Amino acid sequence: MEVDYRDIKVIGFDADDTLWVNETYFRDAEVQFAKLLSQFETENKIDQELFKMEMKNLPVYGYGVKGFVLSMVEMALELSNNTVSNQTISKILDIGKEMINQEVELLDGVEEVLKQLSQKYKLIVATKGDLLDQERKLEKSGLLDYFHHIEVLSDKKEANYSKLLNHLEIKPSEFLMVGNSLKSDILPLINIKASAVHVPFHTTWLHEQVNVNQEESKQYKTIKSLKDLLKILQ
Amino acid sequence: MEVDYRDIKVIGFDADDTLWVNETYFRDAEVQFAKLLSQFETENKIDQELFKMEMKNLPVYGYGVKGFVLSMVEMALELSNNTVSNQTISKILDIGKEMINQEVELLDGVEEVLKQLSQKYKLIVATKGDLLDQERKLEKSGLLDYFHHIEVLSDKKEANYSKLLNHLEIKPSEFLMVGNSLKSDILPLINIKASAVHVPFHTTWLHEQVNVNQEESKQYKTIKSLKDLLKILQ
Repeated sequence: MEVDYRDIKVIGFDADDTLWVNETYFRDAEVQFAKLLSQFETENKIDQELFKMEMKNLPVYGYGVKGFVLSMVEMALELSNNTVSNQTISKILDIGKEMINQEVELLDGVEEVLKQLSQKYKLIVATKGDLLDQERKLEKSGLLDYFHHIEVLSDKKEANYSKLLNHLEIKPSEFLMVGNSLKSDILPLINIKASAVHVPFHTTWLHEQVNVNQEESKQYKTIKSLKDLLKILQ
Repeated sequence: MEVDYRDIKVIGFDADDTLWVNETYFRDAEVQFAKLLSQFETENKIDQELFKMEMKNLPVYGYGVKGFVLSMVEMALELSNNTVSNQTISKILDIGKEMINQEVELLDGVEEVLKQLSQKYKLIVATKGDLLDQERKLEKSGLLDYFHHIEVLSDKKEANYSKLLNHLEIKPSEFLMVGNSLKSDILPLINIKASAVHVPFHTTWLHEQVNVNQEESKQYKTIKSLKDLLKILQ
């Protein structure tokens, strides 16, 4: 199947790890967290247990830093059999606030690409995570003006995207999604007959990792840098 | 000034304490929190300090249960001079999870009103707070089908509403907002020349309390129950 972008009217961009660095900060936080609790367990085990705790709490807390921090606090209590010091709890809260207040580091070529594409397409941000976090990052990024709309989705499954297209009042064939996660930004789009372009980031959260079969892999393009999007859409 | 609803095309509903009970659960949580820490301070003082902590953290955490829980944890550490027990921290996390998993209790007449209005207007939910929380509540409420769109705003100031109207591609005169908070659901709308109807709830969070001057009070209607909306819009 030849991928065709002629009908595209709206381009949706994932935000974290597509427009700017994000996963790196979570990895750093996990390293700090494991060090804080190193008297109780090996860092490797702490990492694994924290991931399990996040997955357990995901249906309750959803995506984003605040839920992550609450999971770290719960994990610290559990892992230490309720002997962790209040200073450590306090440091965990600090890790979270630092993550939220983190500067925004744009990925290569982002501004140039958005500037050019915004002249021809309606651009939106379609992201998971915390609304306030994402708005703040967009504000800091200086990219806000290129976007017609920010859509924060509670999840990125087919139904969420179908609802988004319905709300944008466009057909699947008129929508192109660009993002770093095969699971969240690419496969659901293919399944609803929209288009998708994959821009891998060097780090992928375990929860976002999937296998792609040959049939699926023919239905989207992969680019190395967001800058290549301009060539594809020419 | 006579309020006129003839041009209205889209009606925005606040969610918490307009469609369903919410503030009551926060008040209950505050009472539980004060009891948990009663060895350190009077309940009244704990209440006041927690509010200050929430206000301090609002720019970082935003609205919603998760930020509230993180503020309770921080408050417990601070109020106890880092002597609070791990069991108490754990109970605070439980309070938060209970709040999130709370059943949805619809306010009087909500379903009937939405059913009727959805035949003539495009209805949307315009709410602050956590996206996942709000989507979950809408799902539980059984009201989802009446709404064209859920807009979760990071704040409810004039600029947020202007952006919303822009995105809905309608004029201010075509938008009516219905909600329980004068500060968030009524005054910003009046200021951007849109319409607003106030439906007070018996409990208002201190942060949402404002004074309204006579000039402003002429520019919106107040109704006792959402059911009265049908009469106003006839």
